[in-house]
Amino acid sequence: MVRNDPAPTIITLTTDFGGGDAYVGSMKGVILSILPIARIVDISHELPAHQTLPAALILREACPRFPPGTIHVAVVDPGVGGRRAPLLLKIDDRFYVGPDNGLFGLLMEDLPLQGAWKLENPEHFLHPVSNTFHGRDIFAPVAARLAAGTPPEAFGPMASEPSGMSLPEYQEEPEILTGEVIWIDRFGNCITNLSDRVVSRWSQGAPFTIRAASKRISKMSTTYESIPEGEALSIINSMGYLEVACNQARADRALGLRVGDTVVLERTGERDKQGECP
Amino acid sequence: MVRNDPAPTIITLTTDFGGGDAYVGSMKGVILSILPIARIVDISHELPAHQTLPAALILREACPRFPPGTIHVAVVDPGVGGRRAPLLLKIDDRFYVGPDNGLFGLLMEDLPLQGAWKLENPEHFLHPVSNTFHGRDIFAPVAARLAAGTPPEAFGPMASEPSGMSLPEYQEEPEILTGEVIWIDRFGNCITNLSDRVVSRWSQGAPFTIRAASKRISKMSTTYESIPEGEALSIINSMGYLEVACNQARADRALGLRVGDTVVLERTGERDKQGECP
Amino acid sequence: MVRNDPAPTIITLTTDFGGGDAYVGSMKGVILSILPIARIVDISHELPAHQTLPAALILREACPRFPPGTIHVAVVDPGVGGRRAPLLLKIDDRFYVGPDNGLFGLLMEDLPLQGAWKLENPEHFLHPVSNTFHGRDIFAPVAARLAAGTPPEAFGPMASEPSGMSLPEYQEEPEILTGEVIWIDRFGNCITNLSDRVVSRWSQGAPFTIRAASKRISKMSTTYESIPEGEALSIINSMGYLEVACNQARADRALGLRVGDTVVLERTGERDKQGECP
Repeated sequence: MVRNDPAPTIITLTTDFGGGDAYVGSMKGVILSILPIARIVDISHELPAHQTLPAALILREACPRFPPGTIHVAVVDPGVGGRRAPLLLKIDDRFYVGPDNGLFGLLMEDLPLQGAWKLENPEHFLHPVSNTFHGRDIFAPVAARLAAGTPPEAFGPMASEPSGMSLPEYQEEPEILTGEVIWIDRFGNCITNLSDRVVSRWSQGAPFTIRAASKRISKMSTTYESIPEGEALSIINSMGYLEVACNQARADRALGLRVGDTVVLERTGERDKQGECP
Repeated sequence: MVRNDPAPTIITLTTDFGGGDAYVGSMKGVILSILPIARIVDISHELPAHQTLPAALILREACPRFPPGTIHVAVVDPGVGGRRAPLLLKIDDRFYVGPDNGLFGLLMEDLPLQGAWKLENPEHFLHPVSNTFHGRDIFAPVAARLAAGTPPEAFGPMASEPSGMSLPEYQEEPEILTGEVIWIDRFGNCITNLSDRVVSRWSQGAPFTIRAASKRISKMSTTYESIPEGEALSIINSMGYLEVACNQARADRALGLRVGDTVVLERTGERDKQGECP
Repeated sequence: MVRNDPAPTIITLTTDFGGGDAYVGSMKGVILSILPIARIVDISHELPAHQTLPAALILREACPRFPPGTIHVAVVDPGVGGRRAPLLLKIDDRFYVGPDNGLFGLLMEDLPLQGAWKLENPEHFLHPVSNTFHGRDIFAPVAARLAAGTPPEAFGPMASEPSGMSLPEYQEEPEILTGEVIWIDRFGNCITNLSDRVVSRWSQGAPFTIRAASKRISKMSTTYESIPEGEALSIINSMGYLEVACNQARADRALGLRVGDTVVLERTGERDKQGECP
């Protein structure tokens, strides 16, 4: 983290600011003004506005893949200027800067929380601090100063319990496992809250069918392209969750699926053995 | 700006090229071919096509936040290949490269213009120079060569008077202040041409209401979240301008507001004191 | 390519992943975990989902402009997890990493192929290798290891013949040259498969008109702004192809043009000399 280090600290940005405003550029400018050698990496600026669950999902998926010491700034912040605290967290040797509204809650489910500080020391903020853009006035300057070597405890007191986040609960019964769509990606793939682990534990390797909207899928696939183009399939995706997809088409449109819609797994009985799910 | 400098020059890009074409990548390739250590930072590529006022707004907001010496390339260039000159400006110790069509006009309103040069020396261009993509053929190579140490005056003669840009004018009367929506951001927030300074001078601290479309807002807010979710509010935003917004909803859709629509501030008389604006 | 090099290797990313998911961030994290000094440059993440021709066009246009040694990662990969091989190519002193589905086919038409290797050595992959996201599990780690100094032949055996790609064919007759729209850019400009060279050879400098949808354009323009605002024109664009455009408006909407629609050039006879095409 010293200026002659050939690999200066990486600061990533994940926001719901979109690509067409000055918000992202302003944050980058503030960071680089404080630490000109900072290396800024965009994770996403197209998160759904004001929604913390999708942001938490994407942060959990992308951030731990960066090297230790990376500083991740996340700003999906509907409560900006209100009572929610601005936070700095250390989780599994990476730093996280953003509002205390659950954004980092899924990360903390999986990985060790090593420290949490409230951002209260105004000497590290950009002044005047607005009530509408803490990304620029608090989170960006704190990230840059942290990257420049300011120790975490200089930013404020320990935070007792950062806000958590949970996926919607699934329902597990002997014959039926009921989940729901929690995210639809750019390809129209419908990602559910049913993890590979949950599905395996419930199915015990016995066959089952998958029902999504009015569609019944008779078995799990292992690749998209094993299914005829345009047809629906179900697969454990790269995040490790059951996903309803179509080969080279949008499953959300083809099946009429939306976030929150149920996806139901049903055991295939001996008499009714159409499917050969593994 | 020498090759061993641990913080090589930052070159930012702000365009209306969108993210789905080869235009942005071509500019980056040209820059890095000339100066492989250049650090390219995206400000925005999603500006409205061909429109110079929004671009000027975003450049004014984001660019001065970068460190001195930063080279800002901006390409919203409906007149490409025509009579408008390609320019290099020095404004407040930062450099600006782009067409002379007013893009940098709002920056020059606020900050000192320290130099202006026409880009006329073809030895610094990429050949053959197209008539349709000066971003790649003129602005990118000039920015890279400037970053590599070529002095500004090597690119061409001094430019006498770079094009300005003005916000639409507001109308100030004793009882009424009339502005208009000049930009709608990703959240649907409707930003007006009424600056904090203008509003304060007109209101003199006395109460007023805000009228936007058919909506009457009885007072200014200081945070989005102080208003019930989905309801309209008015606030001085992070750019220092009066904005009509909704808490966690799109004000443009909720109120039917578009760029150019008027926003009217009216003093709240003694007899009609519903509002308690500060 | 050594760690103390002041200009560490550039790795570019071109995908159809969009900006709103974790896919792009995951790839960046994997690359930087392997080689923290890698410099990642986004070319585009907004390519049309699953379509290899537009991707091949954009790669051909942008990638050769980067400096020699650049590593270009491209992921438009409808056959992920299936039989198509993952590849590493060396074309004109730049490296290309991605699926063997024709993405690099247009590049190979123009530039020398200097080497091709199948990515088969699992020691360079991220494990477990998913069947749905080779961008993260194969292409990103291979690019990072190549940038870190692993020689190309360490990744797997030589590949005999990487998949090609061709533009749709045009039809050339003495009086008529028939092409088609192959790409519509962010501005609504309709780019055809008729290169400057083909048009020149066919026209021999004699005048012709251009027909696109029901519109007849009487001559070629050399700049957009030479035509009244909103009107249709035809121009050789910055890629060197004939393009049907409107000055400061979307030609696709104004003329009702789509990818695949024909664009016809017809010689202007002596008796019918309305046009003055050069």
